[in-house]
Amino acid sequence: MDSKKRNRRGFLRDSAALAGLAAGGAGLAKGQTQGTPTKKIDELIAYGERSRFVNSIRLPVAERHSPDEFGLTFHVLTPLQDSSGIITPSSLFYTATHRGAFVPDIDPREHRLMIHGMVDRPLVFTMDELKRLPYVSRIHFIECLGNRAKPTHKTVQETHGLTSCAEWTGVPLSLLLAEAGVQNSASWIVAEGAEEVKGASSIPLAKAMDDCIVCYAQNGEPVRPQQGFPLRLMVPGFEGIYQIKYLRRIKVVDRFYMTYDDYGHINPDPKVAALTHQIGPKSVITFPSGGQKLSGPGFYEVSGLAWSGAGAIRGVEISTDGGQSWKNADIRSTAHPMAHTRFGFHWNWDGKECVLMSRCTDELGTVQPTRAEVAKFWNEPLDKVRVRGSDNSVQPWKVASNGSVLNGLS
Amino acid sequence: MDSKKRNRRGFLRDSAALAGLAAGGAGLAKGQTQGTPTKKIDELIAYGERSRFVNSIRLPVAERHSPDEFGLTFHVLTPLQDSSGIITPSSLFYTATHRGAFVPDIDPREHRLMIHGMVDRPLVFTMDELKRLPYVSRIHFIECLGNRAKPTHKTVQETHGLTSCAEWTGVPLSLLLAEAGVQNSASWIVAEGAEEVKGASSIPLAKAMDDCIVCYAQNGEPVRPQQGFPLRLMVPGFEGIYQIKYLRRIKVVDRFYMTYDDYGHINPDPKVAALTHQIGPKSVITFPSGGQKLSGPGFYEVSGLAWSGAGAIRGVEISTDGGQSWKNADIRSTAHPMAHTRFGFHWNWDGKECVLMSRCTDELGTVQPTRAEVAKFWNEPLDKVRVRGSDNSVQPWKVASNGSVLNGLS
Repeated sequence: MDSKKRNRRGFLRDSAALAGLAAGGAGLAKGQTQGTPTKKIDELIAYGERSRFVNSIRLPVAERHSPDEFGLTFHVLTPLQDSSGIITPSSLFYTATHRGAFVPDIDPREHRLMIHGMVDRPLVFTMDELKRLPYVSRIHFIECLGNRAKPTHKTVQETHGLTSCAEWTGVPLSLLLAEAGVQNSASWIVAEGAEEVKGASSIPLAKAMDDCIVCYAQNGEPVRPQQGFPLRLMVPGFEGIYQIKYLRRIKVVDRFYMTYDDYGHINPDPKVAALTHQIGPKSVITFPSGGQKLSGPGFYEVSGLAWSGAGAIRGVEISTDGGQSWKNADIRSTAHPMAHTRFGFHWNWDGKECVLMSRCTDELGTVQPTRAEVAKFWNEPLDKVRVRGSDNSVQPWKVASNGSVLNGLS
Repeated sequence: MDSKKRNRRGFLRDSAALAGLAAGGAGLAKGQTQGTPTKKIDELIAYGERSRFVNSIRLPVAERHSPDEFGLTFHVLTPLQDSSGIITPSSLFYTATHRGAFVPDIDPREHRLMIHGMVDRPLVFTMDELKRLPYVSRIHFIECLGNRAKPTHKTVQETHGLTSCAEWTGVPLSLLLAEAGVQNSASWIVAEGAEEVKGASSIPLAKAMDDCIVCYAQNGEPVRPQQGFPLRLMVPGFEGIYQIKYLRRIKVVDRFYMTYDDYGHINPDPKVAALTHQIGPKSVITFPSGGQKLSGPGFYEVSGLAWSGAGAIRGVEISTDGGQSWKNADIRSTAHPMAHTRFGFHWNWDGKECVLMSRCTDELGTVQPTRAEVAKFWNEPLDKVRVRGSDNSVQPWKVASNGSVLNGLS
């Protein structure tokens, strides 16, 4: 770093107004050293950046470091171990797809959304037209069903990083459907995106008329390309594959349609198949979590996230003895329905080996199951249980006596 | 743009795995053209970016396009006309300072927060130590007192862009003060940042013990450098200058201390001087707003933001006839206390010239004043009223018959 003192007025006069000069803080905060001018001030004005000391990044899943050989499947994990609060920064929002790993480069002026099928008035909307309609802004999570497909991974980013949460803004789908005039015999919709593989999902009409949102904004700016720019369907509480990116078509139909995406939804009863994929109550401790290290005995704030596809989180409990006893954690954020909810628990670590767990309860009273309960449900041995669908069982983190944190399932 | 079709497998094999290839959408959405590979996929994985079609940026205030000659004063405006929901993206959060326009380059490992003065146990915290303490996550706005210093500007970015809203996470200041042991005769705190000019603000102890937060995170990641990385004091509802960036010292004292920042707070009664700078109920229509243009008569969603330093927004009214009549708008987001709240109003424009206005009411029942009421209060002519402190009067936008939107005050 350039620690040479510079005359600021001269500096501004002589150069292209570079920024990054620091306070000459000689007092308490030693870190306030002379800075390095690295950015043109115009860049700093237009669209600010994070500190050079902040390096949190997403990572691809360990089993696939780049898109598959067809360029279709790719999963990139949110760094939950670095998260604060409930909003996931858009730049760190997870992305998962089987429909084309390369993001469509869509000009929003050319994009259209068609609503057709069993409606009285088929409609086609431009983006400008959609933005002229009433809208809502809500905070909701999205989680990939495959989150925690391999429960033995080391870090919370690897085990649980396929969930993120954002503020979503857009037009209620119910409004668009009402405008189109849904016919009496209709019972499902099929929502289609514009990826190279025309993936689509069948969604019950009852859900479509309830709380779904045709979203054009995420965290206060247009939906990011990796999240479906310019339009993403939000289906709150359902697994990620329903949240159709690059939304371009909604067909109203009278039955469940099997689609490219339904590899996971094959069930004798199609309604059961689809509806079982509402995300169950789930929670995970993000600190301390696998791969982190405690500096020694003493007070720590156990921190984590809880969420449920069925509504708001009503409570979270913490165990510091591997599930033998549980104490109430505190809810540290607003508990929005179908949204990440931040919990905290003040813990005095005695320096002995122990196992930390969290479990949550949602507003319907459903309690997140332990791994033993899941094993019993599937009638499989505890150490070899293969969870079908979303694995929302309790995550144990083992704290070794040297402070190292390990996955209790690995 | 390169519209040549490429063999994807060959492309991946031969190149450095570039992204940006698009869906070959030949259907409804014409915009899904063949894309241009512009980014290495590693970059897209690590920290996502916005669409190349999204170009919303902050702007410096018109009267000062770069920091002043001393490098101290600078104001950069949020593009409210492009905003959605209530979260301001951290990259577009406004910044205003009189303490050094160049951001201190602080290494968080070296940063310290000291709490001293009239306390039983003076304390110094590292960042790691602060993060071991209980915390809260809350959504709050920050607004510069100088927001709307010149009410005749053209756009809503220019008139109202010195306000933004984010999710803030950190340790309640009351917890730190309780740990230090505030002495009975104390009544104020002085909070100091690490800028080159050691600016500070005096804050009533009652406020410090109420809802202030020592924040290390904003919108789910560390506080951005322009917002005070690594530590910012959140004083909910008070004007921006109290929200001390680069927080390094809190001194507990027994009186209001005059500081560098108090150019605006000189008043015979120091308590009045300080406390009058809680932000009053304020709202502004962001669409349609100055500089925008309606494409013709028809339905539009009037959209805007309301906020108050005194608590949550309870209601917003819209006038489409220059204040002669008012109708209730809808609240489109959660109305968090001391936070931007999104409102909407469905409006059928008949194509005639008209004046749009919004006014809000907060949870104390305080109603945002019209400009005429403000003029009467200050006993000045309506066209020349000079508002002292925060100008929270109603903003009129004039819609011309050709659809052009103009500032009704210019």
